[in-house]
Amino acid sequence: MSEADQSEALSGQRGERYTEGVVDLLGVLAYGELSAFDRLAEDARTAPTLSGRAALAKMATAEMGHYRLLEEQLARHGVAVEDAMQPFVTAFDSFNAATAPHSWLESLVKAYVGDGLAADFYREVAEWLDQEHRDLVLTVLDDTGHSAFAEREVQAACEQDRSLRDKLTLWGRRLLGEAITQAQRVVAERDALAELIITGSGDITGIAEMFRRLQGKHAERMFRLGLG
Amino acid sequence: MSEADQSEALSGQRGERYTEGVVDLLGVLAYGELSAFDRLAEDARTAPTLSGRAALAKMATAEMGHYRLLEEQLARHGVAVEDAMQPFVTAFDSFNAATAPHSWLESLVKAYVGDGLAADFYREVAEWLDQEHRDLVLTVLDDTGHSAFAEREVQAACEQDRSLRDKLTLWGRRLLGEAITQAQRVVAERDALAELIITGSGDITGIAEMFRRLQGKHAERMFRLGLG
Repeated sequence: MSEADQSEALSGQRGERYTEGVVDLLGVLAYGELSAFDRLAEDARTAPTLSGRAALAKMATAEMGHYRLLEEQLARHGVAVEDAMQPFVTAFDSFNAATAPHSWLESLVKAYVGDGLAADFYREVAEWLDQEHRDLVLTVLDDTGHSAFAEREVQAACEQDRSLRDKLTLWGRRLLGEAITQAQRVVAERDALAELIITGSGDITGIAEMFRRLQGKHAERMFRLGLG
Repeated sequence: MSEADQSEALSGQRGERYTEGVVDLLGVLAYGELSAFDRLAEDARTAPTLSGRAALAKMATAEMGHYRLLEEQLARHGVAVEDAMQPFVTAFDSFNAATAPHSWLESLVKAYVGDGLAADFYREVAEWLDQEHRDLVLTVLDDTGHSAFAEREVQAACEQDRSLRDKLTLWGRRLLGEAITQAQRVVAERDALAELIITGSGDITGIAEMFRRLQGKHAERMFRLGLG
């Protein structure tokens, strides 16, 4: 099959616009994995213990395993992963620049909250996709073990330190705000992706409900860290 | 089999001292992989293109695949990888502190020259090991694709720029000197590892010959980069 035929077969009955939205989605996921790799690798370098360092390096490695799956699927659509990621570089990098962590714990909270929010969002979107792409998205959202690690470290550090807990709680709130700002910018600029989301959630009320669910899950997540 | 039995079976006829030397060797290799992961991940972050960044992140990931193999073999000896690596942390970190690259190209040359030297050395040592450990060492020395990448980038950059070429040539020489200094320190502190090397190379003349071979290969490597 030629690349164009493959691409058509993959988009099935839903047409070109759908495929365009899916390629955007795979691209933003891929850049998310590459960014997560960077961040985990950087945290590995500053980990206070050798075993923490090795644990984080392994998690970074798992993100690149997901990246490869996305790259392969994009290739089946005839799209280079670099081209699919390019539109999302600025939004991610702006988010990261605006939320540069000042400590090991801020960094753990950022990864936990950021990845959790992103995963909840992508899981909602996955429900509207064809079977093949849904399975792929759910696979690359597999937690690489970072969550349990972050919960352990943050809970232990906050147990005896009320003011640290308050500071990290504020930090978590700021992360939520910055993430929503950037997500809105991305969607505003990518028409096909926006259509995928609007069609999937039904209408503008559906989108509002989705955002409420995401915020609810964010609150639960903060609670699991022992914050908020 | 208990861990102690496994460890004995692995060391075969050669006794406890041999096993101790092998555990040291696996430990230094593991820390080398973890350090290579760090360095490649950091280079990924500063890569001038998105595809260079993804390429380096994949290489970093491959290093962690090697790390896992070493960790598993150490576990068969009943040794935690962190404990096996610990004695070598200072030497590696001193080497890295003394040779912090000031540019993307210095960083590429450092990885190329450092990994090449280390691989040549470990390949010599592998010849003196039992079959199982020899196979493992040769597997983890598999090039992760960095070499071809570095050759391409460095040659292209130096082609039109004689003064850059001279600077990188000096840089390569300094790397050789620093690497030898740190290697000698490590061997001086780890008796079992030193014995493994002395027994393997026959005598002190054998060691001197090995060092000459390593320097010869270093010179060839610089030549392949278009330097020296």
